[in-house]
Amino acid sequence: MIYMDNMAGTKPDPRVVAAVTPWITEKYGNPSAHFYPLGRESYVAIEAARASVATMLNAPKAEQIIFTANGTESNNVAIKGYLPTATKLGKKHIIISEIEHFSIQNIFAKLLKDGWEVTKLRVGDSGIVNPDDLKKAIRKDTALVSIAQANPEIGVIQDSVEIGKICKEAGVIYHVDAVASCGRIPVDVQAMNADLVSVAAQNFYGVRGAAALYVSPEVKLKPLFDGGYQERGMRSGSENVAAIVGMGVAADLVTQEMADYAPKMAELGRHFADGIGNMFDFLHFTGSMTKRLPGHVSFWIEFVEGESLLMWYALNNIYAASGSACSSNILAHDEEDLVASHVLTAVGVPTDICAGSMMFSMSKYTTKEDVDKVLEVTPGIVNKLTAMSPHYNR
Amino acid sequence: MIYMDNMAGTKPDPRVVAAVTPWITEKYGNPSAHFYPLGRESYVAIEAARASVATMLNAPKAEQIIFTANGTESNNVAIKGYLPTATKLGKKHIIISEIEHFSIQNIFAKLLKDGWEVTKLRVGDSGIVNPDDLKKAIRKDTALVSIAQANPEIGVIQDSVEIGKICKEAGVIYHVDAVASCGRIPVDVQAMNADLVSVAAQNFYGVRGAAALYVSPEVKLKPLFDGGYQERGMRSGSENVAAIVGMGVAADLVTQEMADYAPKMAELGRHFADGIGNMFDFLHFTGSMTKRLPGHVSFWIEFVEGESLLMWYALNNIYAASGSACSSNILAHDEEDLVASHVLTAVGVPTDICAGSMMFSMSKYTTKEDVDKVLEVTPGIVNKLTAMSPHYNR
Repeated sequence: MIYMDNMAGTKPDPRVVAAVTPWITEKYGNPSAHFYPLGRESYVAIEAARASVATMLNAPKAEQIIFTANGTESNNVAIKGYLPTATKLGKKHIIISEIEHFSIQNIFAKLLKDGWEVTKLRVGDSGIVNPDDLKKAIRKDTALVSIAQANPEIGVIQDSVEIGKICKEAGVIYHVDAVASCGRIPVDVQAMNADLVSVAAQNFYGVRGAAALYVSPEVKLKPLFDGGYQERGMRSGSENVAAIVGMGVAADLVTQEMADYAPKMAELGRHFADGIGNMFDFLHFTGSMTKRLPGHVSFWIEFVEGESLLMWYALNNIYAASGSACSSNILAHDEEDLVASHVLTAVGVPTDICAGSMMFSMSKYTTKEDVDKVLEVTPGIVNKLTAMSPHYNR
Repeated sequence: MIYMDNMAGTKPDPRVVAAVTPWITEKYGNPSAHFYPLGRESYVAIEAARASVATMLNAPKAEQIIFTANGTESNNVAIKGYLPTATKLGKKHIIISEIEHFSIQNIFAKLLKDGWEVTKLRVGDSGIVNPDDLKKAIRKDTALVSIAQANPEIGVIQDSVEIGKICKEAGVIYHVDAVASCGRIPVDVQAMNADLVSVAAQNFYGVRGAAALYVSPEVKLKPLFDGGYQERGMRSGSENVAAIVGMGVAADLVTQEMADYAPKMAELGRHFADGIGNMFDFLHFTGSMTKRLPGHVSFWIEFVEGESLLMWYALNNIYAASGSACSSNILAHDEEDLVASHVLTAVGVPTDICAGSMMFSMSKYTTKEDVDKVLEVTPGIVNKLTAMSPHYNR
């Protein structure tokens, strides 16, 4: 099996798994029950994990990190939690990019009904927001800018430092969805001047069930859940101790090892892109080739359905994705289908000859042999599919 | 170690742990990525768990179960999710009991600010709501009744079937917080005529990080999170596959084995209560002694602090609780302290001579030896503490 759908979740690091295991067996104490050792050790473990996540994100204080269950929850807690404050300040305008993740797109789509105005910054073919466009878009009543550090579907990296500078100068709260970027490039909340930053353990070799939100001292959040005083009242409810401990270890590993493995992933990504780019003149890469997550390769092939590619790769035990990683494969009421992915449209993919995209995202475990194997089977798959198409005559 | 704080979380069943483990190691696929086997098997596993939880709750259809991260989230999704619909129907009144869990109390405390009217039904010394009081309290504009099936702090069981009947007749939506009861007594959504029922895996030998909400076809919920289409759009965000799989297995075990272990727990509870009740005439049990969760014993001792008892038991490696299980030990801004627990006040505990309560909650693993050991050390602990008190002269 060659797994290249790491945007949808990474294989947990064995050291994370080893750290998690005691917390689903013998260490089952409730962290709120700190009158006895079994509960207290859970509390202590959560606080250690909080410090590890803070270090990974270069957050000044551990207490600025709150734990949630996944990236979508972090995004929702951040944005819906801040807007009541913004309303009190008389703000009613929000700026996002047109390639934000569904959890951002859908939050803001609903806010329109509540009287909020949303500006979606264009990205053009590169997939990258022009900071000057942001500067022009900011108004006196702008509450929030929410622009992801990297896009999971086309892999491009935004100029988050420059964006943060503009937000800070304008006095606008800056939320960064760093779910796709964390574990692949540095996520530095101070360098970005970010006020709110979402990350999820499942994207950097942790286990599913733990995510975090950095909250700067500038921001007062209204919690989405009411209940006990867990996470300083910002996220009530019993903590998932095991997954949080795993997230702490995963954060430590990012801090210690990412500078080593990320360049190797980038090299493999270039190797793959070079190989596949030379094969077909009807293959088009999506998004910037340079400002890009390491090991992320995304493209589309004229007249070839993304779903068909996906399936044929899967039949070769190569697992990748098409469209947005999180839910592209479900044709839900509130989502576009694969062909009309809002991200592909935004980067100028022509809908008349594009029938879906492919996205390969590598991990620190990906080897050159994996990439060479994918390169090896690709001509057979693509030739089969183009041969079936009336649009090719070869 | 003798663990008798099972209201704060149970030790995961080894069979649950065995089922969970593959999903944090090799089976890391995203359930939304069902174009390839690694993702598809996650999807299939979640649906199997959903069916298991539905069976445990006697829900007519698996799709009526949605997964969340913990009981507090289930309660919040249920209540905050339903109220927008209720508002459209012109409703503005809610009925709860005065001994609801913090996650319920605090939700409704905040709703008062939004113009909702909340009636808190008195329970009296037994801790049990009188169905006639409910009948009288229901108004034409009553949107919702939220009364837990059992109270974690004093262990009493409400007459949920009768309450459900009254709600159904009145056409009022009925939410049951069954977090404390599930795994200890049957939770039958149809017998209770319940519309919304919250349960949490950590309370019935699952692992932390998975909980569920039963949603009847009568109820349309507005989600708290926006994002992808997970959980039919009612709870967006990547699923915690491992914890959900564990919850499914835990539910199967409840379905198959609870009828066997619950009576034994009840017997141990009576043995403990008999033993401790005969020891001191200044010890007072809280709540009904008959309508009570199996293995649940709660009491207070005149002039003795609950915290001191807790600590002395902990020094004897006996872990129990004082006050509400989830966050009683944290003196948070929005919570009463131990002495003034809203539950103790509700059941008429005199605040001038009561300085906190003790709560022992057993599990299916609790043995007679455990109980006898607690009984053995109790006189020493109580005598030490009463000897230190100016209120006793012996």
